[in-house]
Amino acid sequence: MVVGFEKAASATKSVMSSGKKTPATLSSDSVINFARGDPTMYHSYWSKLGDRCTMVIPGNDLMSYFSDAGNLCWFLMPELDHAVRRLHRVVGNAVADDDRFIVVGTGSTQLFQALLYALSSPDEPEPISVVAAAPFYSSYPEETEFLRSGLYKWAGDAYSFDKDGPYIEVVTSPNNPDGAIREAVVNREGGKLVYDLAYYWPQYTPITHRADYDVMLFTFSKATGHAGSRIGWAIVKNKEVATKMVKFIELSSIGVSKESQLRAAKILGVISDDCQDSGPNKEETLFEYGQRLLSERWERLREVVERNGVFSLPKYPQDYCNFSGKYTDPSPAFAWLRSKEGLNCDNLLREHNIVTRGGTTFGVGSKYTRISMLSPDEEFNLFLERLSAIKGTGKGNCY
Amino acid sequence: MVVGFEKAASATKSVMSSGKKTPATLSSDSVINFARGDPTMYHSYWSKLGDRCTMVIPGNDLMSYFSDAGNLCWFLMPELDHAVRRLHRVVGNAVADDDRFIVVGTGSTQLFQALLYALSSPDEPEPISVVAAAPFYSSYPEETEFLRSGLYKWAGDAYSFDKDGPYIEVVTSPNNPDGAIREAVVNREGGKLVYDLAYYWPQYTPITHRADYDVMLFTFSKATGHAGSRIGWAIVKNKEVATKMVKFIELSSIGVSKESQLRAAKILGVISDDCQDSGPNKEETLFEYGQRLLSERWERLREVVERNGVFSLPKYPQDYCNFSGKYTDPSPAFAWLRSKEGLNCDNLLREHNIVTRGGTTFGVGSKYTRISMLSPDEEFNLFLERLSAIKGTGKGNCY
Repeated sequence: MVVGFEKAASATKSVMSSGKKTPATLSSDSVINFARGDPTMYHSYWSKLGDRCTMVIPGNDLMSYFSDAGNLCWFLMPELDHAVRRLHRVVGNAVADDDRFIVVGTGSTQLFQALLYALSSPDEPEPISVVAAAPFYSSYPEETEFLRSGLYKWAGDAYSFDKDGPYIEVVTSPNNPDGAIREAVVNREGGKLVYDLAYYWPQYTPITHRADYDVMLFTFSKATGHAGSRIGWAIVKNKEVATKMVKFIELSSIGVSKESQLRAAKILGVISDDCQDSGPNKEETLFEYGQRLLSERWERLREVVERNGVFSLPKYPQDYCNFSGKYTDPSPAFAWLRSKEGLNCDNLLREHNIVTRGGTTFGVGSKYTRISMLSPDEEFNLFLERLSAIKGTGKGNCY
Repeated sequence: MVVGFEKAASATKSVMSSGKKTPATLSSDSVINFARGDPTMYHSYWSKLGDRCTMVIPGNDLMSYFSDAGNLCWFLMPELDHAVRRLHRVVGNAVADDDRFIVVGTGSTQLFQALLYALSSPDEPEPISVVAAAPFYSSYPEETEFLRSGLYKWAGDAYSFDKDGPYIEVVTSPNNPDGAIREAVVNREGGKLVYDLAYYWPQYTPITHRADYDVMLFTFSKATGHAGSRIGWAIVKNKEVATKMVKFIELSSIGVSKESQLRAAKILGVISDDCQDSGPNKEETLFEYGQRLLSERWERLREVVERNGVFSLPKYPQDYCNFSGKYTDPSPAFAWLRSKEGLNCDNLLREHNIVTRGGTTFGVGSKYTRISMLSPDEEFNLFLERLSAIKGTGKGNCY
């Protein structure tokens, strides 16, 4: 069973991070919630930037359903279209040239479902199979299944998929939960690939190439930490696919919040400006900040894991990042912890008042669990303190 | 076939109203689009209010997925929850006491689909039937059908529905397209009622009672004209239904734009303030403004229709409005025009460069068509001018 947001929210005595205020003082018996990927870590970065990203919206602005009636994606604000293409050009992580279509969604969650609709057909005799290599993002199965669509159905782990005919494979790279760089695994005729590149940004992984797949998903939440805005975008090569996605979003929500789109455009624009700034007083960019903070956290986490001997963590190869112009270590947004002794990892941590998302929700065993690395400092420190207190029999290592 | 938004948007030489600027100067051969319900008429009201509804959002605000982790609807901003309940209390159009649940959605479009999910069950042997009395809102059939759900299916006109077992009936009141005040028509055991009260506001109809149905849908778009914000809300009595709706919104978009929610809260708050203002310099409220403008438009439209003898319009009974404290005439957001001579009404108007939404999309005949009454003045004036030029054989009347 997938641990839903609302379940995570209602965890007893859970400390909430609103992203607005720092959490209430943490006491020794507070439950800390690391099951969610709420990117509250970024709050401090945006605070440092002061008024540069402040949005002012008059009461008579952004009132029409339409954003750009001449555009195939008629609800996409031209400002966001421009800011998205520019940022990808500046970062070099994806091709977003003018011959690609940008489709905006209420988070990439809505766009994932728009793609299931766009890549399936009511004329097929049976629903198209949707697969992803385990461990896969825990929400894919439920998002695919919950409406019992006759157009598509969840078919599980791509590694064990052996059905003939058309299928959709979702490739999440870097992967959620385990941070691995991935390619498609089924590779059969009739396959349609969806690349979920939510974490293909320089703070999480070296940017090794400009991704140029048929369909690529990105989300404001993970790029900058603005999860409350619910903005995602797809870069789509094929016009018919983009048209069907737009139809899906029209039918499911008649477009996407203009306020959020405009705010996202402004914030992405400031990031691009800062990345292109080569002046002597150049500030730390969002990506430098994120990479620095996450690297430090990963280093400290690895130290604790090595010391207490109960868990292990994946190792990631260093690579040359075209964006930063140097070799960098990947520092994924989630730690994919494995219990060395085959214990239920999620349960073990819960006993120590740490809520995580267990491996079974990702299609693998309970000896794994996923831990968000994007919490505020105070919570992350408390997490390490509690993790240190868990003592095992052996010596920790990396797998 | 339902005329989709994107089709309406791409109508040749159509004049677009962005809600931000006044439309380009209208030439005599411009196509004017009255098919959409884009509420651009309200733009001038909010312009008069100046800075009172201006939103300022710092770059580090509204970042978390969570709005109110202790609330069943964990993504609902407390400010919006408060503003919605207060406005319903002030206007007296619906019971929104503290024992009711408020669920926010990306427009009431998302909430309608959340309700289909919440009121159906995967344990039933077949999909639950969804019906509405014709003429029904043109998007209901497609929103119900497009994912080929195994949970629910569109079953057409409620008047001719005769299947046993559970069903969902959508009651739109005042009705879109024809402005009629409605009650359920099937009235059989196992029926679940959804009241879409998008237009139950004082500018459109006299407020005769505080609606208190199990499930009621409202939308920011029609209440105030802010269609670009994509904010709707449901008032729900049953906790289990509200919980399933929240689950639907979690799975389809992980919540709703916080920027839009906060802006809606501010604007609804200003409306409530103005309605409660009894000072000597009291400004015209939104509802007074809307009622005044729509009444004038209806009067002018009726004059043209009576004069040219080709069409007829529904008559609406005057009623006592509890909100304004006087008898008022209904002034619906759409005019439901009927061709007296059985002509295809939509085609006839298209010949005169007026795009409307024809009767067949609402489940009735092509002698009807729906015309938005919420356009900017310049477009509405041009519409009346063109309508005046259509000459028939008889004398117009009202049906």
